Amino acid sequence: MPRPSRERWQRSFSEWFDWALMRAEIYDYGRYPVKGMGIWMPYGFQIRKRVFDIVRELLDSTGHEEVLFPLLIPEWMLAKEAEHVKGFENEVYWVTHGGLEPLDQKLALRPTSETPITYYESMWIQSYKQLPRKFYQVVSTFRYETKATRPLIRLREITSFKEAHTVHESFEDAERQVSEAIDLYRKIFERLGIPYLISRRPDWDKFAGALYTIAFDTIMPDGKILQIGTVHNLGQNFTKAFKFRIQGRDEYFDYPWQTSYGISDRVVAAVISMHGDDLGLVLPPEIAPVQAVIIPIPAKDPSVDPKIIDYAKDALRSLQESLFRVKLDDRPDVTPGEKYYYWDSRGVPVRVEIGRRELDSGTVTLVRRDTLERKTVRLQELPEEVRNLMSQIYDSLYRRSWEYLRQRVSRHASVEEASKALAERGGMVELPWCGKEECANKMAEALQAKVIGTPWPTEPAREGDRCPVCGSSAVTYLRLAKQY
Amino acid sequence: MPRPSRERWQRSFSEWFDWALMRAEIYDYGRYPVKGMGIWMPYGFQIRKRVFDIVRELLDSTGHEEVLFPLLIPEWMLAKEAEHVKGFENEVYWVTHGGLEPLDQKLALRPTSETPITYYESMWIQSYKQLPRKFYQVVSTFRYETKATRPLIRLREITSFKEAHTVHESFEDAERQVSEAIDLYRKIFERLGIPYLISRRPDWDKFAGALYTIAFDTIMPDGKILQIGTVHNLGQNFTKAFKFRIQGRDEYFDYPWQTSYGISDRVVAAVISMHGDDLGLVLPPEIAPVQAVIIPIPAKDPSVDPKIIDYAKDALRSLQESLFRVKLDDRPDVTPGEKYYYWDSRGVPVRVEIGRRELDSGTVTLVRRDTLERKTVRLQELPEEVRNLMSQIYDSLYRRSWEYLRQRVSRHASVEEASKALAERGGMVELPWCGKEECANKMAEALQAKVIGTPWPTEPAREGDRCPVCGSSAVTYLRLAKQY
Repeated sequence: MPRPSRERWQRSFSEWFDWALMRAEIYDYGRYPVKGMGIWMPYGFQIRKRVFDIVRELLDSTGHEEVLFPLLIPEWMLAKEAEHVKGFENEVYWVTHGGLEPLDQKLALRPTSETPITYYESMWIQSYKQLPRKFYQVVSTFRYETKATRPLIRLREITSFKEAHTVHESFEDAERQVSEAIDLYRKIFERLGIPYLISRRPDWDKFAGALYTIAFDTIMPDGKILQIGTVHNLGQNFTKAFKFRIQGRDEYFDYPWQTSYGISDRVVAAVISMHGDDLGLVLPPEIAPVQAVIIPIPAKDPSVDPKIIDYAKDALRSLQESLFRVKLDDRPDVTPGEKYYYWDSRGVPVRVEIGRRELDSGTVTLVRRDTLERKTVRLQELPEEVRNLMSQIYDSLYRRSWEYLRQRVSRHASVEEASKALAERGGMVELPWCGKEECANKMAEALQAKVIGTPWPTEPAREGDRCPVCGSSAVTYLRLAKQY
Repeated sequence: MPRPSRERWQRSFSEWFDWALMRAEIYDYGRYPVKGMGIWMPYGFQIRKRVFDIVRELLDSTGHEEVLFPLLIPEWMLAKEAEHVKGFENEVYWVTHGGLEPLDQKLALRPTSETPITYYESMWIQSYKQLPRKFYQVVSTFRYETKATRPLIRLREITSFKEAHTVHESFEDAERQVSEAIDLYRKIFERLGIPYLISRRPDWDKFAGALYTIAFDTIMPDGKILQIGTVHNLGQNFTKAFKFRIQGRDEYFDYPWQTSYGISDRVVAAVISMHGDDLGLVLPPEIAPVQAVIIPIPAKDPSVDPKIIDYAKDALRSLQESLFRVKLDDRPDVTPGEKYYYWDSRGVPVRVEIGRRELDSGTVTLVRRDTLERKTVRLQELPEEVRNLMSQIYDSLYRRSWEYLRQRVSRHASVEEASKALAERGGMVELPWCGKEECANKMAEALQAKVIGTPWPTEPAREGDRCPVCGSSAVTYLRLAKQY
């Protein structure tokens, strides 16, 4: 049996990813006759659901209210905020006909929902006393992408866009909300064992209509950067565009302040990519649809098999009683080896093997998915041992993935050094920066990389650090990377 | 305080319904600048979520697998099954442009998903050994309705369409699945206290592409019929259209059999309409976002108020510990009367009033939402009493709504009698029927009603019953009603 390996990814992560999605029946991609759209299959759907259960739990517990806004946005509404529509008009799908009739107005499939949500907030909220309000929805959004599409990473139908939208009475309150959102996203990614870097996007690459954008990026197994979450301070841009004013504390009417923040299918892409290996998925136990699978091993003497099955059923019951998501795979016409292969590719954290030896000694053999280490324990200790293993697996996935990321972030004094680091191990490099867009673009060009932004929280440059392009004193550091 | 009344509905149910949706902040309708689309507000979203949690629970526990298919369906795919496209082509929204470019193929917003799902089933399923398979998804579907739209009842964006799709190796198996689906829908509606009638739709009104359609209808407070669920035996119509064949038990390849069944936002519309009264919503406790609200009543002597609040917090804790969804409404600047009005309109099943009298005697006063009956109980008994009240409320809503429906269904020998019954109390009438479409249409015309179908399970006519139009022997009974 091949040992789990992370090295193979670096040769061909993209092939591995496509293979793993199909092999584990996550997301059927590339066969739908519309580019950039695929199908969440039953097993993948359960993973997606558990990831977004975590998102919902954290949002609900911090006063966010789930809502559902229409998919179709009239052209004039999308166009209300000038920067916003400029950013999106080239990548929006348009509905133009109902039945055989042309519609009297073009309707966009939502690319994001700042505009309809602000429109309603202006009707729902009259006074600072009603603030803050925090709304969110989990919906499909659509982008007519011109870049190459990829399953879960760059889709034209983003099937799981969690977009949050908040309203505040002051700039300071909106700033506090940006911090809360960043904390929430930290917690989400921590629970999934996805390591991240937080950057402020450069002004020329912020969300269309925002004052500024903070982004979470992770480093994928091929060394490229994937944006996995963004938080925007929208200022008063949308409230002014929609003439949405409220009565303020000082009795005057004024435009309230907004933030918005989103994460998508990419979270699922990241959790699969970050932890998987040659055998397929390795899932953090919290989101595994099946946390333990019991596999009976037929004995040499077939008359023993019914006893093995009964014993396996005891194990099943004991894990069910402890509320694990557990399956007994007693398919008679499938070999244990085939079953291992099947469940390993699906990332089930713990395998429980039960054969004659286990039956005779009152034990079970546990195999952890991430290391394939085996351990024999007494049947009575099974729930406790599975719980421990699951916690060890999570810790180990978490540590390993953070280590992987940390090894791929470095700060350099010169473009040459940075270039060498990027070529060697991908990831992210940081260079001192004077703050000028022109210098940033030159660095990006020299590195054949993209400007990711500057560290968040903001980090002033050390005395003496100089922009490698223009030589003037640096104000902070610029992050660059090859990006999805 | 106005007593709950159901009579008002019959004067103006439609106004009541619009008022109740806005008053309780369920669904903001009529203000979105695209007809037939609205917004699920936070409170409404929680009700919707709990209704669909029941749907998911029942489907998951019977081997249905949740999936997610694309929204956009290419024109050629929708057109594969000839009857199907004929039924939908006049009411589909078409996406024709991506950004500023025209697309090379028109894409329909899904009106329903038989076509893409059959397309994938044909790739996923090769053999009878993989059958039955049961898929479902909960998605937005779109119909360019030409009829008058109404919130949750006739939308152009149906925001919560649960569509199930199953595949079987034989006609008999598909028939068994139709029965299972009917049983599931019975259970869903029973849990919500929605009474129903099950009919087989006439052949000229079945789902486009089905062999036949079984429908669940309820009778709304204005006496009109609302279709709340349908179950279709699709035969081999879609599998043939998609050349989807499997290896059968007999080694030959053949087209498998399919069923599909759906319910929508209308379930929420029905549960709100069926149980509500003049004060607003009355929710079955299982789906109530707040099951009990605690309202402190200020004392004449304000120095006692902190003690009342502390006592109310004891009550809160005791209900929280028993896992009720409970709120303490201690807003200082709102009168108890305003609070009653607020929570009553939201349908909270149990109100807990706590004032000086309760504080001094170690009791609390409970008011049940459906009857407004009051009852004082000891604080220690609060969780037990709330549990009992909730169960009594459910029983009473259930009984009352079934009684309402039963009183509005009757069988008649003549069109005149039937007409009189319809005029008096709305609902459904049954007339003996020879089976000819022509006679059905004449009955419908005479009654100014719609043909709903025939009783399910099929009921043969009694000896001697004759079709009131042509006078020949009846084969069964025809159901007619005014319908939404």
